[in-house]
Amino acid sequence: MAKQDRAVRTRRRITEAAAEVFEREGYQAATITEILRTAGVTKGALYFHFQSKEDLAQAVLHEQRQEEAVRPQEVRLQELVDGGLVLAHRLAGQPLVRASIRLTLDPYAQGVDRRAPFRQWTERNLKVLLAAEAAGELLPHVDPAATAELCVASFAGLQFMSQVMSDYGDLSERLSVFQHHLMPSIATPYALAHLDLSPERGRRLVAEAVDRGGEGIEGLRV
Amino acid sequence: MAKQDRAVRTRRRITEAAAEVFEREGYQAATITEILRTAGVTKGALYFHFQSKEDLAQAVLHEQRQEEAVRPQEVRLQELVDGGLVLAHRLAGQPLVRASIRLTLDPYAQGVDRRAPFRQWTERNLKVLLAAEAAGELLPHVDPAATAELCVASFAGLQFMSQVMSDYGDLSERLSVFQHHLMPSIATPYALAHLDLSPERGRRLVAEAVDRGGEGIEGLRV
Repeated sequence: MAKQDRAVRTRRRITEAAAEVFEREGYQAATITEILRTAGVTKGALYFHFQSKEDLAQAVLHEQRQEEAVRPQEVRLQELVDGGLVLAHRLAGQPLVRASIRLTLDPYAQGVDRRAPFRQWTERNLKVLLAAEAAGELLPHVDPAATAELCVASFAGLQFMSQVMSDYGDLSERLSVFQHHLMPSIATPYALAHLDLSPERGRRLVAEAVDRGGEGIEGLRV
Repeated sequence: MAKQDRAVRTRRRITEAAAEVFEREGYQAATITEILRTAGVTKGALYFHFQSKEDLAQAVLHEQRQEEAVRPQEVRLQELVDGGLVLAHRLAGQPLVRASIRLTLDPYAQGVDRRAPFRQWTERNLKVLLAAEAAGELLPHVDPAATAELCVASFAGLQFMSQVMSDYGDLSERLSVFQHHLMPSIATPYALAHLDLSPERGRRLVAEAVDRGGEGIEGLRV
């Protein structure tokens, strides 16, 4: 194995260990010592890749990216739907993504900028909603910024309730219910008629991205 | 002060102290010792009212009740709206309610039945939605059970995002945005035209309940 590959794998292993410890202990209670133990690496290896616990948290948060599975669609609103459905599917099956989202929402995770992920998710949604508006897919009264924030907040709550009620087993279903309630209030009849809001869509999009291969899909495998 | 009054006040003081400690330390890390210190009561006084930390958690969770401020309305869907707006207003101003909701959503609160509050909120919403359905206020495709759960999950997420972004300052506004998105998808045009979804409504309903007085309003004062 080339030196660089080994470094990538070590970094990945430490990130997974950090996620596991954050998930188990909560961010505040988690220690570097416990992360070292879980990863089975030396202190030197960890500090080669990460400067601090905050730095490890940032790496875990980075696992939320999923551009490879959410591709441009003819009806732009479909991309808003897809972002949610892909994340819902990954949450149900990927411990690292699960830890990442829970870290974002951990009320006791001090030292992590807790607003940043909400802002990033909102910006991503807003970009898609503005594209949908430009394409004439939104009803005239819609305020894209307000809708973008609502989608972020609702997703946060849906994943929470799903985690408590079914260990994420029903998250795609719950998200689909939300989208069925949201879309008639914001989409034109034409756009609405062309949207696929089925809960199985997230799984299919991830599988297609993995089949296509290429950089950045490593984090998508469930 | 009569013996009974004193007991009621001591119980209240201990509940508030427990809420404060759960909020500050997280449920898992909170100790009876720290709650005793915060309340300034003896161990005997605490164990007269509560048997365990779980028992204290139940008392904190009980603070979510607010029947006195959410009264029957001519358009039944208004009661669904009101339940949310009253809770949003109380969350912004009442530390005990805030601690109660955060305890419900604390992912590290082991030993508390975390599903129970979600089920109770869902049941309350479902009851109102079924009444609205019987009154002919719901569009024909609406599934009251799915909508009831969606409202609970979305509220959980809205309060989370609001807490992170503005320390609850914008929660009523965020909830009103949600209701403006939700209602056109479930309400008949007649019901929709008669709903008051303004974010200021929660504050007014609480003030009216406090003015009316009577049992059970103590917990509503902001």
